[in-house]
Amino acid sequence: MKGAKGTLWLVPNALDLGAEPVPLDEVLPLAVIRRAATLAHWVVEDARSARAFLKRVHALVPLAQPLQSLHLRELPPPAKGKARGEARTAGHATLPAPLQAMHGPLAPDGQPLLAPALAGHDLGLLSEAGLPAVADPGAALVAAAHAAGVPVQPLPGASALALALAASGLEGQQFAFVGYLPQDAGARSARLRELEARSRQLGQTQICIETPYRNAALLGAMLAAFAPGTRLAVSCGLTLPGGWSRMQTVSAWRRAPPELPERTPAVFAWLA
Amino acid sequence: MKGAKGTLWLVPNALDLGAEPVPLDEVLPLAVIRRAATLAHWVVEDARSARAFLKRVHALVPLAQPLQSLHLRELPPPAKGKARGEARTAGHATLPAPLQAMHGPLAPDGQPLLAPALAGHDLGLLSEAGLPAVADPGAALVAAAHAAGVPVQPLPGASALALALAASGLEGQQFAFVGYLPQDAGARSARLRELEARSRQLGQTQICIETPYRNAALLGAMLAAFAPGTRLAVSCGLTLPGGWSRMQTVSAWRRAPPELPERTPAVFAWLA
Repeated sequence: MKGAKGTLWLVPNALDLGAEPVPLDEVLPLAVIRRAATLAHWVVEDARSARAFLKRVHALVPLAQPLQSLHLRELPPPAKGKARGEARTAGHATLPAPLQAMHGPLAPDGQPLLAPALAGHDLGLLSEAGLPAVADPGAALVAAAHAAGVPVQPLPGASALALALAASGLEGQQFAFVGYLPQDAGARSARLRELEARSRQLGQTQICIETPYRNAALLGAMLAAFAPGTRLAVSCGLTLPGGWSRMQTVSAWRRAPPELPERTPAVFAWLA
Repeated sequence: MKGAKGTLWLVPNALDLGAEPVPLDEVLPLAVIRRAATLAHWVVEDARSARAFLKRVHALVPLAQPLQSLHLRELPPPAKGKARGEARTAGHATLPAPLQAMHGPLAPDGQPLLAPALAGHDLGLLSEAGLPAVADPGAALVAAAHAAGVPVQPLPGASALALALAASGLEGQQFAFVGYLPQDAGARSARLRELEARSRQLGQTQICIETPYRNAALLGAMLAAFAPGTRLAVSCGLTLPGGWSRMQTVSAWRRAPPELPERTPAVFAWLA
């Protein structure tokens, strides 16, 4: 472990998970694609979608070595017995315990996924969509990199949250992302009212996401829970053909609620 | 005002304001550059930097019409007597009153800057760095577009806030951007302690920015105000050559505080 450490590159992905893929250079800067093509070591949210990403990279900039020979390791799954969103919001950015057991060999500091960087290799971190570690897993690995003295370099790419906020026309100087909401209807309504009150108190736009097939239910819950004058923005299919963003009051949404497709990611933002 | 309306395109800018410019295709997707090259009507934070941006676009994709013939209009400046950050955070996203007086001719709904879109022309919104309307002006125009039925389309690009959060390794499922802090030392310390307490209470990463020449003073105030165990991330010169991101506890920062260059943008994030 002597000698220079590799860099942890945070590689943005496109926002078209589950949709018809567009050429990557339509949605990612060339420097990102070129960097991704050089990396032999990866930590990824999902190996299958990471291979699909790397094939798209290769179509534009040939990979430095064959896809089959790349070292891809997956981030640990959410803790058992919890839905993805719940596990993700359950605590601060610390490496989950199962990681220790699931991935070997251990690096000296107990962060096995960092081992390539500690051994001097550059390492890519990739999630299924958008920026890793923003409303997506990966923060624990980035924190471990800082603790181990591994340089961290984020590459420029879009975050769906930031695009949705820009498109909302709501307060962009004070905003919060509040993760996933509870699935239980009563708990979800209570949480929505709590977040609406916080928005009003702080003048702070609140932003959340949901698994696509639950988007329609979430929107219904919002229209039931929020005050008529609260401004609500919905962005559906950001950067995708047919994608749209609309912001209006809750009372206007109630008069003509939109159809939200079951497989298209959406982002919700509101300001009371 | 009959017939189809134009679209309001939210055009991301590079993050190199004040630094040596890189080729735009290194930091922005091709589709963004191509779209920008087609637009004849613009609303911009600053006309001079917008022209510089359009020259960089032209170097990659020829503009559809000469730069001199493009219609560029500036967003209204912050209200008088207030520093830029203060004016920006003073209220919700409503069009400031001075706009009405400063820009003519008025569109029928009183939003003069929207007039080209209402007349059927596509309209670009551009800030000096990153995404418009996210920690930057423009939200009021986007809100007006929604109110007038003008379609709003955000183009994919990087937000410095989102990149800094990804690079922090801090909680990426719960975070808030809190704008600019007060400049008065006493008020700033009080605000920092308030935001540290909120971070602890909500498990929420707090993110702020400052005018570059005040970054060193802000960091000093953070190291004085925060508890030793609070984790603080600094991202300096994101996407720029020599840019860096580091996260460690306040006590570790105190032992060796970094030099923050006076002209390089930085983003601060903390989790108590």
